[in-house]
Amino acid sequence: MNNKHLLTADEFSPEQLKALFEHADAMRTTLTDEKARKELATKHIDKQVCSLFYEPSTRTRSSFEAAAMKLGMGVVSTENASEFSSAAKGETITDTTQVLNQYGFSAIIIRHPQTGAVAEAASVSEAPIINAGDGKGDHPSQSLLDTYTIYRKFGRLNNLRVVMGGDLRNGRTVRSLAKILAKYQGNHLVFVSLPELQMADDIKEILTATGTTFEESSEMEQAFKNADVIYWTRLQKERLQGDASISSGGFVIDKNSLKYIDEHAIIMHPLPRVGEITEEVDADPRAIYFEQAGNGLYIRMALLDGMVC
Amino acid sequence: MNNKHLLTADEFSPEQLKALFEHADAMRTTLTDEKARKELATKHIDKQVCSLFYEPSTRTRSSFEAAAMKLGMGVVSTENASEFSSAAKGETITDTTQVLNQYGFSAIIIRHPQTGAVAEAASVSEAPIINAGDGKGDHPSQSLLDTYTIYRKFGRLNNLRVVMGGDLRNGRTVRSLAKILAKYQGNHLVFVSLPELQMADDIKEILTATGTTFEESSEMEQAFKNADVIYWTRLQKERLQGDASISSGGFVIDKNSLKYIDEHAIIMHPLPRVGEITEEVDADPRAIYFEQAGNGLYIRMALLDGMVC
Amino acid sequence: MNNKHLLTADEFSPEQLKALFEHADAMRTTLTDEKARKELATKHIDKQVCSLFYEPSTRTRSSFEAAAMKLGMGVVSTENASEFSSAAKGETITDTTQVLNQYGFSAIIIRHPQTGAVAEAASVSEAPIINAGDGKGDHPSQSLLDTYTIYRKFGRLNNLRVVMGGDLRNGRTVRSLAKILAKYQGNHLVFVSLPELQMADDIKEILTATGTTFEESSEMEQAFKNADVIYWTRLQKERLQGDASISSGGFVIDKNSLKYIDEHAIIMHPLPRVGEITEEVDADPRAIYFEQAGNGLYIRMALLDGMVC
Repeated sequence: MNNKHLLTADEFSPEQLKALFEHADAMRTTLTDEKARKELATKHIDKQVCSLFYEPSTRTRSSFEAAAMKLGMGVVSTENASEFSSAAKGETITDTTQVLNQYGFSAIIIRHPQTGAVAEAASVSEAPIINAGDGKGDHPSQSLLDTYTIYRKFGRLNNLRVVMGGDLRNGRTVRSLAKILAKYQGNHLVFVSLPELQMADDIKEILTATGTTFEESSEMEQAFKNADVIYWTRLQKERLQGDASISSGGFVIDKNSLKYIDEHAIIMHPLPRVGEITEEVDADPRAIYFEQAGNGLYIRMALLDGMVC
Repeated sequence: MNNKHLLTADEFSPEQLKALFEHADAMRTTLTDEKARKELATKHIDKQVCSLFYEPSTRTRSSFEAAAMKLGMGVVSTENASEFSSAAKGETITDTTQVLNQYGFSAIIIRHPQTGAVAEAASVSEAPIINAGDGKGDHPSQSLLDTYTIYRKFGRLNNLRVVMGGDLRNGRTVRSLAKILAKYQGNHLVFVSLPELQMADDIKEILTATGTTFEESSEMEQAFKNADVIYWTRLQKERLQGDASISSGGFVIDKNSLKYIDEHAIIMHPLPRVGEITEEVDADPRAIYFEQAGNGLYIRMALLDGMVC
Repeated sequence: MNNKHLLTADEFSPEQLKALFEHADAMRTTLTDEKARKELATKHIDKQVCSLFYEPSTRTRSSFEAAAMKLGMGVVSTENASEFSSAAKGETITDTTQVLNQYGFSAIIIRHPQTGAVAEAASVSEAPIINAGDGKGDHPSQSLLDTYTIYRKFGRLNNLRVVMGGDLRNGRTVRSLAKILAKYQGNHLVFVSLPELQMADDIKEILTATGTTFEESSEMEQAFKNADVIYWTRLQKERLQGDASISSGGFVIDKNSLKYIDEHAIIMHPLPRVGEITEEVDADPRAIYFEQAGNGLYIRMALLDGMVC
């Protein structure tokens, strides 16, 4: 990382990504050995992190908190800061951040519904700020675990055919993954969605500028042909106000869809899903979305371990 | 326990209950000695539990969390998972459970408003699942602390006259306690309630099948005669939708009621109470409901210590 | 302190305040040294505190929790006990407190919207109860950190000219600070507010009885002249039901106001602010409200360390 905060995954160069993934691998290995694991559990015993969530999240918050605890850190947690905090009294996020800085936290993990709010917090913070998702903006630890998952399976992040499906316009995970893949040579992206939810122009411009090829499609099964990675997402209803007419339509991966997917491919999803991958797919070895979620633990341990020194 | 999860108290045989109670006693002793207590506080330092509460609970959550911490475990806590989690986005409990499994929790403690939801979670979980109450279903750690409280006072769980009062139809604590007492010889149960809230047939059938005698009564004070244990409960208004006409009526234990209760008897209540035992009763040595709550700490320590190996 | 609970800051004599401030200074020093900090982080490893917040609060809860963790204690936390607990089922605070006492907490930190509720809890508690704010009542750790902040800057708590502004009638911080300053010789207080929000008579009587001089003013800038301490507060809208017509009016400290404030003076605010001190003031060295908040960490560490022995 170029600076002490983690605001976007874009700031990672391929070299830095590689170093992070090696750190995550080391964390994974450490956890398999009881003696090493107990030692790690006191490594940062004098440190605390604060998790400040202005929006619901089970998986992100709990994996960050589990990661912090496995490193020996204490966790002060706020499940719904919008409702249960001085934010309810009208305090700005910069004031809240400046106060939390006074309490000696080694990192402050923030989720916020407004794009840019976390960067605003970082602008006044001595303590490292971790963006755990800011509206339509970024969710870098998710992007990093996505990338890590692909890297672990293929040993590379270049020359991959990656199909992305769902709400590509608003989905921060697919937008961010596309930007990271554009840093590597020879990737080809296939965007499967409804026309009104297709990948936005800003991302397409980055792809074009970096020579990363892409195509759009509304034919899911045809798109799967020769894919290495299928990255599926839900239609984020909470971001589609008043657009209830849009449904996941034909974009459901079920047992039948598996016939169109290569043996060596992987099926990813940032979760939660709400039907766009049916449960009968879970047992298929190509379906690695739970393993993918689990990679978040090691990535978050590596991030915290690296940031709080 | 026959398996790694704790879903109902029924699964405990008398031998297993005895072993659990001895484990709880050992925990109690350990906490009285500073050196032993500090040692215990690092025993499971490399482990974390997740408490996932889809429904309010101060006492169950806080005693499980205190228990975990006294054993050295870290706790990732969700106070109201229904509102502040991916459940709000429509995720199933099995998906949530599978994700939490990826984060290396040594146990997942779940409270859920729907009967059976916790068992569903357990069906996909490698990590031990602890049912901390599932609607009208079970609340095994409560039943175990109830049983432990009786065992500590009388040194036995057989040949007891046990009066149960309140909402027996819907109350999971009384239902569960009746089932456990049916595993022992010579117990006699007296059910005191309004006709419409009397003990349900499924429990009565178990009692009959095991030769455990019982009677129904609507005369509280008469029922108290010769009782060893009086287990009182509130009318759980949150389970009685649209039945506001039912009140605790005559079933309030107050100072006057104490005259009808034997010297050696104990008065229990799972708490919270909302008037069905008046505060003037608290000072009476037979009133042991706070001590009963406290037994929950040792039982939960024993459960966690036994499950996370 | 005269007793094991911390209910009001009034109970501290000047000698006890001095001892507390020295304890807070020692905590501050300990945290600057890694070895000492790590030792401290296991000092109370066998202890847990419970934070029970019936009302929103980021700063108080998170600083108490961080303080507890820096001393090695575990924290069981309830962010919004009104909604997510047995209080929702109608349990009294004394019952809740008696149950929490059974779980072996070394301290219970309570915020409650009703004045007197925390004292009620203390009346049945063996475990030390810390009042973290009870409605219009007290918020002693805030008053102690305010006093500590003044003491650190001036080396004394007597012979000070202290201007207090904002909602003096309802603001518990200004009321409490006035009472503490009345214990020392030679202080002069200037109360700046709208007539309907001026300092209440009970406080004025204490000032008169102790020979502490004071004046009322509605001229902010004139009041600042020769002041040592300017303690500014917001109009607590949540306490002013139906009085929406009252605004912070002329009582906003902005860059221009700084001209009227002495070089050696300090500008304090309990935070959160909602406009009554503009952000352009933050960079001025006299503006110490964030540092003031930070002093809360050391005061809370000293309190917890002193109470849980």
